[in-house]
Amino acid sequence: MKTLWLENQTLSFREDVPDPDPQAGEALVRVRLAGICGTDLEMTRGYYPFTGVPGHEFVGEVIAAEDADWVGRRVVSEINITCGRCAPCSMGNPTHCERRAVIGIRGQPGVFADLAAIPLANLHPVPDSVPDEAAVFTEPLAAALEIQQQTHIHADDRVLLIGAGRLGQLVAQTLALTGCELTVVERNPKARQLLEARGISVIGPEDVPSRQIDVVVDASGSPQGFALARQAVRPRGTLVIKSTYTGEIQVNFSSIVVDEITIIGSRCGPFAPALRLLESGRVDPTPLIAARYPLADGLTAFAHAKQPGALKILLEMMPLKGVV
Amino acid sequence: MKTLWLENQTLSFREDVPDPDPQAGEALVRVRLAGICGTDLEMTRGYYPFTGVPGHEFVGEVIAAEDADWVGRRVVSEINITCGRCAPCSMGNPTHCERRAVIGIRGQPGVFADLAAIPLANLHPVPDSVPDEAAVFTEPLAAALEIQQQTHIHADDRVLLIGAGRLGQLVAQTLALTGCELTVVERNPKARQLLEARGISVIGPEDVPSRQIDVVVDASGSPQGFALARQAVRPRGTLVIKSTYTGEIQVNFSSIVVDEITIIGSRCGPFAPALRLLESGRVDPTPLIAARYPLADGLTAFAHAKQPGALKILLEMMPLKGVV
Repeated sequence: MKTLWLENQTLSFREDVPDPDPQAGEALVRVRLAGICGTDLEMTRGYYPFTGVPGHEFVGEVIAAEDADWVGRRVVSEINITCGRCAPCSMGNPTHCERRAVIGIRGQPGVFADLAAIPLANLHPVPDSVPDEAAVFTEPLAAALEIQQQTHIHADDRVLLIGAGRLGQLVAQTLALTGCELTVVERNPKARQLLEARGISVIGPEDVPSRQIDVVVDASGSPQGFALARQAVRPRGTLVIKSTYTGEIQVNFSSIVVDEITIIGSRCGPFAPALRLLESGRVDPTPLIAARYPLADGLTAFAHAKQPGALKILLEMMPLKGVV
Repeated sequence: MKTLWLENQTLSFREDVPDPDPQAGEALVRVRLAGICGTDLEMTRGYYPFTGVPGHEFVGEVIAAEDADWVGRRVVSEINITCGRCAPCSMGNPTHCERRAVIGIRGQPGVFADLAAIPLANLHPVPDSVPDEAAVFTEPLAAALEIQQQTHIHADDRVLLIGAGRLGQLVAQTLALTGCELTVVERNPKARQLLEARGISVIGPEDVPSRQIDVVVDASGSPQGFALARQAVRPRGTLVIKSTYTGEIQVNFSSIVVDEITIIGSRCGPFAPALRLLESGRVDPTPLIAARYPLADGLTAFAHAKQPGALKILLEMMPLKGVV
């Protein structure tokens, strides 16, 4: 089959990768549309030592499964493949499974490919009314919703989001649904325009207030973003870290103690509410799509995704002969 | 009156300090017993640029007040003197008052003195059954209870406390009351013995488990303690920082995001439950008393308090002539 392939941090397009061979409990899924996310870009910079097919954001359709009910269904997939038996799994925290594989990131081939073998337990059917172009955002939208799984956003909270890139745009849309007083810090004109089109106020970093914000979400991925978040959060406020940083950050923890700040690291989130919000139209990720490329042009697609301010770049797979 | 006096980080004993002149809303309090805490020691190392009478942990008795009902009452006092009008005060967070003075720490004379003028609004009467030797611990006990104000300790949580010095001992006693599975990391023999006498299990740093603990409280005040806390906390667990560190700490926030750790800075806490726990005897701080010194021997008392592993050192004030 055709795939992108990552090896020694180098990406290539290959047509010689064997089709996946689904194991017990796995479905064979034809990938229809896949999204390039920040983690995919980081992997080409050595963030994870992964060799194989990258990619984990996608919508596809089941073409083979033990349970015939699944065949023909359009699906999205949780990315963590879990053991179900370790301490985190037993506590209801499967995304923290100690033995987890992660699709396209760790120990499991990804979805920048015509086909993928994926555990049935990971799949969620996509409602008919949700087009592929929206469904492909389910995974990052779930990650955005993880914030509200972890901390209570009160309707009257002042909330500041720092950074409205690929993930930040979805965070902004979901935070706005709470009715909170939301402001987003973003400089990129296109990103600002998308937010303003939804009535979300946008400011520059120079206008960030000091010690006033109830909940600050840092989706900037930069130490400067963290510093800005720390400046903005009020005493006893909450600082959610929604994206990873490269390397370590110097933190004055004495001031965190004196101001009694709560800092929350936030990663993968729940798929079911993400699909509900897509189905209801309360979140519309499609304006984030900057470009679509055929899988064969994956290297160009990655180059595009790496441009500063680039929003979502999609990879489109061709229908297989004799299928669909 | 007689006081200790801090100036240019140097402590002295003085007999020439004028008696305080209570302002409207203030009571004149005779200090009976005062405790030396870590912050007092830090102040002699330049932690805060304070000149005047240090000290904020005490029990005393009101000898003059506008409201005669207060006169003769034994009292303890909240240490933050607040404006009641700023944003934190309006939100019910008076300990974060933007214009706060802090007794013996910032903008308000402290209690290592025969007398102190203290706002009536800050005072709490001490129940008759609570002796001075217990009441003097009200402020640090309240700080210990702040942990449970900020995070829910479940009865079946695994909880690890790192450091059982002056504050840590009180944290250990209050955490043990929840029924949680509590373990304390402490090397000092005396501190270990006090914990073991209460049936609290104690381990050395070498026996701290990895990624298993629901709630870790770092009361060590050292970067090594923070590193140990980070090691011990489970994915999606909570790390409470209960003491300040000198300088900045390097933190790998990407791992905090991946493991979705919550970090909570924790400072001053509620006095009323602290007094209830002292009255009921459910917390007994008196075994923490390492020594009592007359105020005139305050410099010796500070030297004692600075010894590694020293627990609580108290300063005792002489009854005033014609009073009591």
